[in-house]
Amino acid sequence: MNSRVINLSEKLSRFADHWAPKVVAQMNDYQFKLVKIQGEFVWHHHTNTDEVFIVLEGEMTIEFRESSVHLKAGEMYVVPKGMEHKPVAAIECKLMLVEPCGVVNTGDAGGAYTAPLDVWI
Amino acid sequence: MNSRVINLSEKLSRFADHWAPKVVAQMNDYQFKLVKIQGEFVWHHHTNTDEVFIVLEGEMTIEFRESSVHLKAGEMYVVPKGMEHKPVAAIECKLMLVEPCGVVNTGDAGGAYTAPLDVWI
Repeated sequence: MNSRVINLSEKLSRFADHWAPKVVAQMNDYQFKLVKIQGEFVWHHHTNTDEVFIVLEGEMTIEFRESSVHLKAGEMYVVPKGMEHKPVAAIECKLMLVEPCGVVNTGDAGGAYTAPLDVWI
Repeated sequence: MNSRVINLSEKLSRFADHWAPKVVAQMNDYQFKLVKIQGEFVWHHHTNTDEVFIVLEGEMTIEFRESSVHLKAGEMYVVPKGMEHKPVAAIECKLMLVEPCGVVNTGDAGGAYTAPLDVWI
């Protein structure tokens, strides 16, 4: 038993809010975040970085302006730097995000869905 | 259906060798690699980077000189930069590694287990 082992299911059980990423690990200057999503997020992009989505439970769609991708549990996707996207999930979906420290969830868009950085669980 | 969606089970089905990481995604200058392990690896460290282990199937131990951690499916661990470690798995274990481009699997140790870089599947 070592407290530095990160159990993803246990971490997911610690919160219930949507669209508010929680940091579970840091590697160099990158963070691994868990987030629960449901409904439609805002259109946004990240000017300086790619962003990785890994679906842990459920399924989701990442909409782009000209296309979309559908992801199920056990699937991942790299949203390229600068590409406008909008995450959507009809039913609650549980994700891991990987991105550099300091990346705001709403990117350039801001607004009510903007979550605080560096909330560790 | 979009070929840029990465299905981890499907990717794992494409290879059978042990201790030879395969790249499935790149985010900025970091890579996500799948690897199957069985037996004992070599003691080594990575001088310039942390290294993330995420267990997808099975279980494994990461031995350190003074301690060890045991990881099961759905658990992850960040091996700190410079820390000597030796991955071990009695039964085959399937992992995702996350680390910067150019990181060699055997770190400073070299030897017969050293796998080529940038093998994509």
